[in-house]
Amino acid sequence: MSADHSTTPTEGQRGPADHDVRDRIVVAARAHFTRFGYSKTTVADLAKAIGFSKAYVYKFFESKQAIGEAICTQCLEKIVSTGEAGKAEGKTASEKLRRCFNGLVNATVAMVFEEELLYEIAAQAVAEGWAPSITLAETVEAMVRDIVLIGRETGEFERKTPIDETSDAIMLVIQGFLNPLMLKHNLHELPEGPTKVINLVLRSLAA
Amino acid sequence: MSADHSTTPTEGQRGPADHDVRDRIVVAARAHFTRFGYSKTTVADLAKAIGFSKAYVYKFFESKQAIGEAICTQCLEKIVSTGEAGKAEGKTASEKLRRCFNGLVNATVAMVFEEELLYEIAAQAVAEGWAPSITLAETVEAMVRDIVLIGRETGEFERKTPIDETSDAIMLVIQGFLNPLMLKHNLHELPEGPTKVINLVLRSLAA
Repeated sequence: MSADHSTTPTEGQRGPADHDVRDRIVVAARAHFTRFGYSKTTVADLAKAIGFSKAYVYKFFESKQAIGEAICTQCLEKIVSTGEAGKAEGKTASEKLRRCFNGLVNATVAMVFEEELLYEIAAQAVAEGWAPSITLAETVEAMVRDIVLIGRETGEFERKTPIDETSDAIMLVIQGFLNPLMLKHNLHELPEGPTKVINLVLRSLAA
Repeated sequence: MSADHSTTPTEGQRGPADHDVRDRIVVAARAHFTRFGYSKTTVADLAKAIGFSKAYVYKFFESKQAIGEAICTQCLEKIVSTGEAGKAEGKTASEKLRRCFNGLVNATVAMVFEEELLYEIAAQAVAEGWAPSITLAETVEAMVRDIVLIGRETGEFERKTPIDETSDAIMLVIQGFLNPLMLKHNLHELPEGPTKVINLVLRSLAA
């Protein structure tokens, strides 16, 4: 998270770009929603719980959704960085894809269903197409495409299938473990399910 | 649907095995739920709408869920027969898998989201593990496994991967277009999505 106070406030955020206060609100809100749920909490409840006035919270966020989106952005950064780390660790393209996917799934499961319980926010973000949710889908697709291109370059993966078809199809088959709305119905398939899926994907990519 | 009146009534069904009356109730209930929804309709509403007394309906079904399960069983028969027809039509194992999957997806989409709107019943059936929903999943898995074995026999498909791993993995990647709880979030991917998925699966099976 940037500490640059001169940054223009992003959409939905009001008042001075005082990142320390904003960050404190987001961190406290995230903990509060994990414990008490997102839908049932009002901005007034939240302000009271973190010891600020409602008016003060509204100086930084125009709505509860704006706070939800800021939490999503934090989650997204964590999920993407875990995926990127997996991609960097893998020595071959196959290992990059496997570790990247595992990283994405594990980070999502932890934040949405296990260590934190941010399902309500995540579900609303995906169902309503909040900006961080769209950014995440695009970022994951770009990572997948990049790994496939690396594998085509090194000769590990086949090159006959158009790259768009390959990356679209991979996104469709891995989303059951990444999209919180679907993952919710796949939790009983953890931890083996993602391994079976990525093994199938790797067989489909074989040169 | 069997016309054998000597059949033992299945669980949740009461009274004489008078299939004509039972069938009339199920057909009328299915039309009623399509129009007015499942969760908001009581057995009393339903009885009134189809011109029977509530007591008479209870002679045949012990609860609204028992009627819902009977509708699921009808849907299941239609979905399975469409999948079986696709499997029979395909000349090669690849074509069998493609047509079987298309048949299953099209029949599910039509009954759950398009021609009829039985989503509420289907969602509850899957979420609560009603018997017809479990039977459907097992039947589809058996069809998929059978087609893979045919393809291994003819030399179309690779034989290195253990058959259990192959069929489990295929089930995991196709469920996004078959499980109503997931399909709901994939409707915007129709009609191309299932084709992309099955093409990927076929690449994964290539000998």
